[in-house]
Amino acid sequence: MTTFSEIAPQLEGQAIEVPSWAYGNSGTRFRVFGSPGTPRTVQEKIADAATVHRFTGLAPLVSLHIPWDRVDDFGALRRYAEDLGIGLGTINSNTFQDEDYKLGALTHTDARIRQKAIDHHLECIDVMHETGSRDLKIWLAEGTNYPGQGDLRGRQDRLAESLRTIYDRLGHEQRLVLEYKFFEPAFYHTDVPDWGTSYAHVAALGERALVCLDTGHHAPGTNIEFIVAQLLRLGKLGSFDFNSRFYADDDLIVGAADPYQLFRILYEVIRGGGFGPDSPVAFMLDQCHNIEAKIPGQIRSVLNVQEMTARALLVDTDALRAAQDAGDVLTANEIFMDAFYTDVRADLAAWRESRGLPARPMQAYLSSGYQQQIEADRAGGTQAGWN
Amino acid sequence: MTTFSEIAPQLEGQAIEVPSWAYGNSGTRFRVFGSPGTPRTVQEKIADAATVHRFTGLAPLVSLHIPWDRVDDFGALRRYAEDLGIGLGTINSNTFQDEDYKLGALTHTDARIRQKAIDHHLECIDVMHETGSRDLKIWLAEGTNYPGQGDLRGRQDRLAESLRTIYDRLGHEQRLVLEYKFFEPAFYHTDVPDWGTSYAHVAALGERALVCLDTGHHAPGTNIEFIVAQLLRLGKLGSFDFNSRFYADDDLIVGAADPYQLFRILYEVIRGGGFGPDSPVAFMLDQCHNIEAKIPGQIRSVLNVQEMTARALLVDTDALRAAQDAGDVLTANEIFMDAFYTDVRADLAAWRESRGLPARPMQAYLSSGYQQQIEADRAGGTQAGWN
Amino acid sequence: MTTFSEIAPQLEGQAIEVPSWAYGNSGTRFRVFGSPGTPRTVQEKIADAATVHRFTGLAPLVSLHIPWDRVDDFGALRRYAEDLGIGLGTINSNTFQDEDYKLGALTHTDARIRQKAIDHHLECIDVMHETGSRDLKIWLAEGTNYPGQGDLRGRQDRLAESLRTIYDRLGHEQRLVLEYKFFEPAFYHTDVPDWGTSYAHVAALGERALVCLDTGHHAPGTNIEFIVAQLLRLGKLGSFDFNSRFYADDDLIVGAADPYQLFRILYEVIRGGGFGPDSPVAFMLDQCHNIEAKIPGQIRSVLNVQEMTARALLVDTDALRAAQDAGDVLTANEIFMDAFYTDVRADLAAWRESRGLPARPMQAYLSSGYQQQIEADRAGGTQAGWN
Amino acid sequence: MTTFSEIAPQLEGQAIEVPSWAYGNSGTRFRVFGSPGTPRTVQEKIADAATVHRFTGLAPLVSLHIPWDRVDDFGALRRYAEDLGIGLGTINSNTFQDEDYKLGALTHTDARIRQKAIDHHLECIDVMHETGSRDLKIWLAEGTNYPGQGDLRGRQDRLAESLRTIYDRLGHEQRLVLEYKFFEPAFYHTDVPDWGTSYAHVAALGERALVCLDTGHHAPGTNIEFIVAQLLRLGKLGSFDFNSRFYADDDLIVGAADPYQLFRILYEVIRGGGFGPDSPVAFMLDQCHNIEAKIPGQIRSVLNVQEMTARALLVDTDALRAAQDAGDVLTANEIFMDAFYTDVRADLAAWRESRGLPARPMQAYLSSGYQQQIEADRAGGTQAGWN
Repeated sequence: MTTFSEIAPQLEGQAIEVPSWAYGNSGTRFRVFGSPGTPRTVQEKIADAATVHRFTGLAPLVSLHIPWDRVDDFGALRRYAEDLGIGLGTINSNTFQDEDYKLGALTHTDARIRQKAIDHHLECIDVMHETGSRDLKIWLAEGTNYPGQGDLRGRQDRLAESLRTIYDRLGHEQRLVLEYKFFEPAFYHTDVPDWGTSYAHVAALGERALVCLDTGHHAPGTNIEFIVAQLLRLGKLGSFDFNSRFYADDDLIVGAADPYQLFRILYEVIRGGGFGPDSPVAFMLDQCHNIEAKIPGQIRSVLNVQEMTARALLVDTDALRAAQDAGDVLTANEIFMDAFYTDVRADLAAWRESRGLPARPMQAYLSSGYQQQIEADRAGGTQAGWN
Repeated sequence: MTTFSEIAPQLEGQAIEVPSWAYGNSGTRFRVFGSPGTPRTVQEKIADAATVHRFTGLAPLVSLHIPWDRVDDFGALRRYAEDLGIGLGTINSNTFQDEDYKLGALTHTDARIRQKAIDHHLECIDVMHETGSRDLKIWLAEGTNYPGQGDLRGRQDRLAESLRTIYDRLGHEQRLVLEYKFFEPAFYHTDVPDWGTSYAHVAALGERALVCLDTGHHAPGTNIEFIVAQLLRLGKLGSFDFNSRFYADDDLIVGAADPYQLFRILYEVIRGGGFGPDSPVAFMLDQCHNIEAKIPGQIRSVLNVQEMTARALLVDTDALRAAQDAGDVLTANEIFMDAFYTDVRADLAAWRESRGLPARPMQAYLSSGYQQQIEADRAGGTQAGWN
Repeated sequence: MTTFSEIAPQLEGQAIEVPSWAYGNSGTRFRVFGSPGTPRTVQEKIADAATVHRFTGLAPLVSLHIPWDRVDDFGALRRYAEDLGIGLGTINSNTFQDEDYKLGALTHTDARIRQKAIDHHLECIDVMHETGSRDLKIWLAEGTNYPGQGDLRGRQDRLAESLRTIYDRLGHEQRLVLEYKFFEPAFYHTDVPDWGTSYAHVAALGERALVCLDTGHHAPGTNIEFIVAQLLRLGKLGSFDFNSRFYADDDLIVGAADPYQLFRILYEVIRGGGFGPDSPVAFMLDQCHNIEAKIPGQIRSVLNVQEMTARALLVDTDALRAAQDAGDVLTANEIFMDAFYTDVRADLAAWRESRGLPARPMQAYLSSGYQQQIEADRAGGTQAGWN
Repeated sequence: MTTFSEIAPQLEGQAIEVPSWAYGNSGTRFRVFGSPGTPRTVQEKIADAATVHRFTGLAPLVSLHIPWDRVDDFGALRRYAEDLGIGLGTINSNTFQDEDYKLGALTHTDARIRQKAIDHHLECIDVMHETGSRDLKIWLAEGTNYPGQGDLRGRQDRLAESLRTIYDRLGHEQRLVLEYKFFEPAFYHTDVPDWGTSYAHVAALGERALVCLDTGHHAPGTNIEFIVAQLLRLGKLGSFDFNSRFYADDDLIVGAADPYQLFRILYEVIRGGGFGPDSPVAFMLDQCHNIEAKIPGQIRSVLNVQEMTARALLVDTDALRAAQDAGDVLTANEIFMDAFYTDVRADLAAWRESRGLPARPMQAYLSSGYQQQIEADRAGGTQAGWN
């Protein structure tokens, strides 16, 4: 049996990117509920993200979304973040809110609109040079709602061409990560619905093009850890968007719906070489705190990833391999689950304290006064949301 | 083989309620796209609904949503609609947009908020007396996002109590129809997730309480026509919210995703006594024309219901029964599908013309100039949406 | 925080019924793989079931399946079981393997076949009198594969009539539990597809008719614990068929696919009064050990139920209620998950030892020599399966 | 509007492969029901297949399954088939019924078992040389039932190696088509669960390795026509296994569950160049006639494919393209559905007669006496099934 002290060193340096928009308001098509203390500016979002890092030591990067987080001087924004102890991470593009994009962006039949969408990504690459970001993440909200509405094949060809133009503008240290999504906001087809489509495109683009796996973007029943293993095998897993779901793309706190699934995913990450200092995989959150407090929601999320990583590291891989090779189904499963069932919370608390972090980050945050302060300070203005 | 002329008389009097909100803007959590000509007022919505009826003869009632369609004088609104040739139908309540309802309404732990939600429904009943509406439709957006967040059982008990208070205020000619929904906007549980829960509540309330079946509110793979048959058997099918879907509650045009399913649903409606002048079932649309033109979208929808009703009426029920009794699986299926495959469009066009309606309602609408007129007339103001 | 010692007394008397057929071979439509030591007779199945109880103290009853377990003298069989320390539990009927039932049994259009199926259930009731069983469990494999093949409504009416005849023959201490199943072996519709249908039938029959909830018999995404809560609220939860699944009715070991779901189900059982000495709920396993060892598979299963029951009992319900009432979503969820994450395995091992049971039942079984013995003893004959 | 006479020439030469096993018995894990007249030998299966071709002109090839259809002299079998007017098509391997394959075959940890499975495929290639078959189809029933049971990554690596060995033995005119399947008979993971995995493997193997798309092997809600379009775009669609489903891999008659989906699939086949004399795509059925008559079931199936092909060919692609380019969602959808709703049955009947085929193949078969003859002739012996 592997022990916590054996795996503790591997937890050093675990880094989870938090998205700026998690600190703003979000909701459903029926209603976006606000909450006191919500940031009004990108600087306030970054301050909240830095707070999550201060209490957990797990979130040294904050991802930005363009245009939601557009500022005049991204260099200054970078220094602002660094002064707060965090860096700027992935740049996320947005081609789903402009009226021009109602029926498509990178796939649109109108060359003018395609070029507009391409130009937006080129702007994002410019931002990346200023922020020092490695990854340009492309989530395509594109697709159709009705059979016949669009030409599925033609859209793929136009997509490939648009992506090529964007990819060719990347700097040598920069990467393009292409997200896939089963459905929503399009309801008949999406242009990148599954990992296979994303893989086919990034394989055609080149080695700095990779797949982004959002854990909420699959059909019911999909074995996500298998996709993780496959993409790592193919050398094409670029990043995660972590969240959890019961039904569709619910965007709940990662690990909240099915913690055992998160454990299995992290096990395959480790198994496939996706964890550790040399990993090419970016671990990002992408969640919507529609009804719960946002900063505590993010704290809970990064802790969930850490706890399940620790459990996954605890798997006795030698014993597991032996049971697998012997065809001993129940023993192999038991070894696997033993690690999942091991309660690492007290060990992690002690480990955090040994590194100058609060043993219990959530309670430390709640009693820190930060929340009361921002609720008082952020009284006026317009709360940030998806705009 | 049954012929069109044999079933044509049964098509007389088919009536489909259209929802006022279908004429306003709708979208996803990512974006609500607008479109030219969208109504700014409930009167303009009613005018559009009346237009759908004028071109199809199928939509004599428009449903209202409170508070979206609240006016000072509902009697005047009723006369306005009647002057345009239609009536006011079902009144739909709304307990999902007030800040107080963030964590529940009729199920809330706070008695004050429950009473507020109950009072809203009592207001709706008052409206019904003025509009002459028969049905109060309750769709509960309530539920929880995280396990443990709420007490599933306690919420049911409070729901039962709230519904009882509302039900007891209904007039003798009025009905309460309780809608169920599998998920959204709540993502862990909804308080009325399935027909069984809705049935258990309305059975406890009394005979003027019935179930509303929204065709988009089921788990993947659910056999909806079975539920139709079962609810009719139990005497508890009150109304439909028609739409179609590929994934979740996509709210696409009814019949657009799976026309054969719509055919099967309508077959069971007819089989179970839910069709015809004495039917207690209200046939309503509930769709979101996120990207397509709204009035044409509604015209297409009511025509789809009519076309599939005609096909379902064409089933040779004597031959079908004989094949079923003989255990002849393939013949029974073939008889069933023969009716589905029968192209009734030309017959329906002729039948419409014989009644003074346009043979091809869509083309007639498009060439009528109505769309151009409203696009010109409705230039200023705020387009109606879900508010 | 509730402690293990506080909840330990409630674990006393927990009883899980094991099905006789779990000890025989099972498989998929593609192949039934055998395994050494598989019982050839019902007596050998009972001996294996008794072994599970001897090592766990959790499985004092074994369910029988008629005709698979038919013997000439059920009284003698009962004494045989009692001599081994266990009792005979639920009697399960079978109307899915006779050629006559190809297109239906209790719902068949042919009165002769319906009567044959009814008579089979009356025979089961006779068996129950001899075995001392309380529950007659009816799982209907009936349904249709093609639209039009059968008359959905007529089948319901015939089902109601058949069930009435069976119900009326029950003794005063006997119960009928009606299982529902989403699909399989029928692929277009099943006659009892959901809890609502089962509930409607048992509510019509009378108070000794109840619903059986098989955890694998739902549409993807279904919130099963909600159904548990609802059925307990309605006083109609009769029994569980425990197993787990990733896709369809996979019949895997309970708790193996989603242990957190099992925890939530057991929490609602306890919350709703379904746990403890006065509970009317029968807790049964219904699994297929297609590739894993059967007796260890059953041991793992009953231990999983016990472990998740202990965790569910550990929920600090006072603190949870307070957080729920305060609308503190994250704290409520954290309290709930804290109990799930608490590792009860060492406490349970100690508790078992204090009661004269092996601390680690699985290891004790594996080193007991029982498996080697049956593999040696059961060399000839025909291994039991689903026949 | 395109007319039937314009598209009729394209229907010439449409060829659908029928599987030999469709004529044998099949069922579910609960029961395999027999039916009178079922073949006992591969010759009788071929005779039945030839009968389907004689009445429809659509099924000139029959696929074989090894070892179910193993004979001493495949050359003689080929001549037997040719004498009956049909050819031998795809050879399907089987690595799911031997005891050795309980936990894997091409992926097994034991090199001996992997080699055995490879050798089986080499034998299939030998058979192909004798039968003149072009395609070796590999459906892998492999996977695991429990997390931890197997090493997901290691299994992929072994699979790649095994496939390489098999591929390298193919003749220059032969192809390997790799099928994927979401689940069943494995319930936690399958080794080739999705088109992406199949594509990654065949892309690595070489240009004569292609993907087989079984329409029943996807997660709920999957847009299958998108996958068709994508695989054709990538040049990797090798063959179809046609069937239909409501839930899992139901293996119902193609077009029976959702005819509009079949229409959409065939539209993308045509759009992507997969239809016509130069198409590299094999169109095969893979269905289970569990309760319906087998030969009529196959006749219905090939007719369904033909009818939906005709409808798909009727799409007015110029008008559709114009509406798509104009962003006219409803018109594009209407043009698309107009083709689907066009009743081609009478035109097809006339077209058949003009080619010397029965206008109504099903009725012609039923009155031909063939069924009565085989029921009389095939009285003794063992009916063929999945063995």
